[in-house]
Amino acid sequence: MSIHATAIVSDKAIIGNNVEIGAYTIIYDNVEISDNTVIEAFCEIGVSNHLSNGNKLYIGPKSHIRSHSVFYEGSVFLESLVTGHRVTVREKVKAGKNLQIGTLSDLQGHCEIGDFVRFHSNVHIGQKSKIGNYVWIFPYVVLTNDPHPPSDTLLGVTVEDYAVIATMSVVLPGAYVRKGCLIGAHSSIKGDTEEDMIYAGSPAKKICSTSKIKLHDGSGDAYPWRKHFHRGYPEDLVRTWISE
Amino acid sequence: MSIHATAIVSDKAIIGNNVEIGAYTIIYDNVEISDNTVIEAFCEIGVSNHLSNGNKLYIGPKSHIRSHSVFYEGSVFLESLVTGHRVTVREKVKAGKNLQIGTLSDLQGHCEIGDFVRFHSNVHIGQKSKIGNYVWIFPYVVLTNDPHPPSDTLLGVTVEDYAVIATMSVVLPGAYVRKGCLIGAHSSIKGDTEEDMIYAGSPAKKICSTSKIKLHDGSGDAYPWRKHFHRGYPEDLVRTWISE
Amino acid sequence: MSIHATAIVSDKAIIGNNVEIGAYTIIYDNVEISDNTVIEAFCEIGVSNHLSNGNKLYIGPKSHIRSHSVFYEGSVFLESLVTGHRVTVREKVKAGKNLQIGTLSDLQGHCEIGDFVRFHSNVHIGQKSKIGNYVWIFPYVVLTNDPHPPSDTLLGVTVEDYAVIATMSVVLPGAYVRKGCLIGAHSSIKGDTEEDMIYAGSPAKKICSTSKIKLHDGSGDAYPWRKHFHRGYPEDLVRTWISE
Repeated sequence: MSIHATAIVSDKAIIGNNVEIGAYTIIYDNVEISDNTVIEAFCEIGVSNHLSNGNKLYIGPKSHIRSHSVFYEGSVFLESLVTGHRVTVREKVKAGKNLQIGTLSDLQGHCEIGDFVRFHSNVHIGQKSKIGNYVWIFPYVVLTNDPHPPSDTLLGVTVEDYAVIATMSVVLPGAYVRKGCLIGAHSSIKGDTEEDMIYAGSPAKKICSTSKIKLHDGSGDAYPWRKHFHRGYPEDLVRTWISE
Repeated sequence: MSIHATAIVSDKAIIGNNVEIGAYTIIYDNVEISDNTVIEAFCEIGVSNHLSNGNKLYIGPKSHIRSHSVFYEGSVFLESLVTGHRVTVREKVKAGKNLQIGTLSDLQGHCEIGDFVRFHSNVHIGQKSKIGNYVWIFPYVVLTNDPHPPSDTLLGVTVEDYAVIATMSVVLPGAYVRKGCLIGAHSSIKGDTEEDMIYAGSPAKKICSTSKIKLHDGSGDAYPWRKHFHRGYPEDLVRTWISE
Repeated sequence: MSIHATAIVSDKAIIGNNVEIGAYTIIYDNVEISDNTVIEAFCEIGVSNHLSNGNKLYIGPKSHIRSHSVFYEGSVFLESLVTGHRVTVREKVKAGKNLQIGTLSDLQGHCEIGDFVRFHSNVHIGQKSKIGNYVWIFPYVVLTNDPHPPSDTLLGVTVEDYAVIATMSVVLPGAYVRKGCLIGAHSSIKGDTEEDMIYAGSPAKKICSTSKIKLHDGSGDAYPWRKHFHRGYPEDLVRTWISE
């Protein structure tokens, strides 16, 4: 365990083995940080909030939270969470393993996230979002939830396995981005979609099957991406993907 | 008064009764923080700047500034300011009471803001903006000001009472968003608008009256929103809204 | 030299004459900060990263890095770099002199930037971007690079001298924004462009020559902007621009 001399760590926090805590970072009471995790400098981990119903923040083993990040109490992240800098995560996020959250991303809480999900920089995840496994969300994408703002209605969006949402798109309240879909950059998408289709524009229209897109170097199909893109995924998963 | 041992607070700053100042926060000279206010950790309050003309930063009573926020000297916020994390506020903001500024929002200064205005996360308010009362601005909205960038012309936008600007819209230089208007998500709006109308698209077109939108649960009209949405507003105001 | 008592500065870092380092800032090992530079509070300068190949971070003389910023090792900035707050800069940025990087901007590294470039707030520069001299990029603009995300292909964008990209536009992978072009707000631009033309919309279309735009006050042509906008540029450069 290596806690920087300037870090402020509550006696009540549960800190696992071989955890590193950076300079000036604050760890509050209601927190469990699992083994082999790194929390960098200037973070606040486990901010108290009445919406957490007293539930702790759980950070799974082998996680890495980069500097200036703020996590509230009341969320769960299974193993190998990795974040960029300045991430904000509110209460009641229930996330699987190997989640990546890019720099400046803002998770508003009250949402479900599967395994091996990748949020790039500056992604905004509204409350009541349901995100499957192996999903990719690119910079400046916003998942919304209020069909007639402002109101008390929260109509979260659903993003299914392997779906990809490209840069600066808005997913409108209650939309379904189905398995393997690609939402083009700078689009707004509402309602339902069909699996493995491309939607683009504002409002987005169905363009064609993702299977029409070829890799830039001419080496084959670009989608399903899991056939050729394997960085950061475990070998056994990749073998399954290739043999599908 | 509760000032964390690691906070750096200027002797020249005026600090009211029952003020809390968090760990590692820096309060500069030219600042007045009113009674019953909370400033969380890692903030900088009252950053010196020659554009402030020596005017102090005034934070009204019962305010709450969340962690990692930066406020310059030379702005005024009446009572009950509430911010998210990582807010940036430059000089010469003149704001009414009960302003909410969401996480990562960036107020460029030199603007006027009425009472009970709500900026959600990641809102960018350009200089010379004039914002009325009870306005709602949602994530990733930008209020611009330069009609032919880059130039020395600052043509601010005007947003009138009760107007709502939905996620990821751009308000172009000199635009007027009139009373009760709704600007749809992912739109760009320029020129003038009519009261209580919906505009959407890029460039935005007039769609219909806001009165055409029904609440998702079928319980009535969604607009004017003040007829049904009352969270965080004082009871006497709500009574007026209902009886209008 | 003025290093705040709470700053943490590596003995291995090379610190020039008359450098100021703010409260709680961390300077790591592999860093050279040149003379007459200011690093404000809560920064991390020279974050170690294996992608830097051991190259140091070089910050040229007369630079000013504002608070809460994070710079990785392995980048070079010539003289007079100025940043806003909360800037993130990854490895392998090769930048000229007089670069301005606005608050919350995120440089993903592995890119080239000329002299006197201006990034406003919240600009996202993807890897493999090539940016000329005297370029202006406005808030919430994203330069992308992956033609079929996710993939291992990085097809960076090129932005030539004097080009201007207005608020909340996406530059798609491999696009060329030619010399003197203006990309309108809330656009998405792909492929090639012609010099000194305006492109707008999503997908962007060629609108007209920039020479058609007049200054708002009727005093002449708005473009080329270098004929009338001179704030922050050296006198001899301005004289050249006027006499061209």
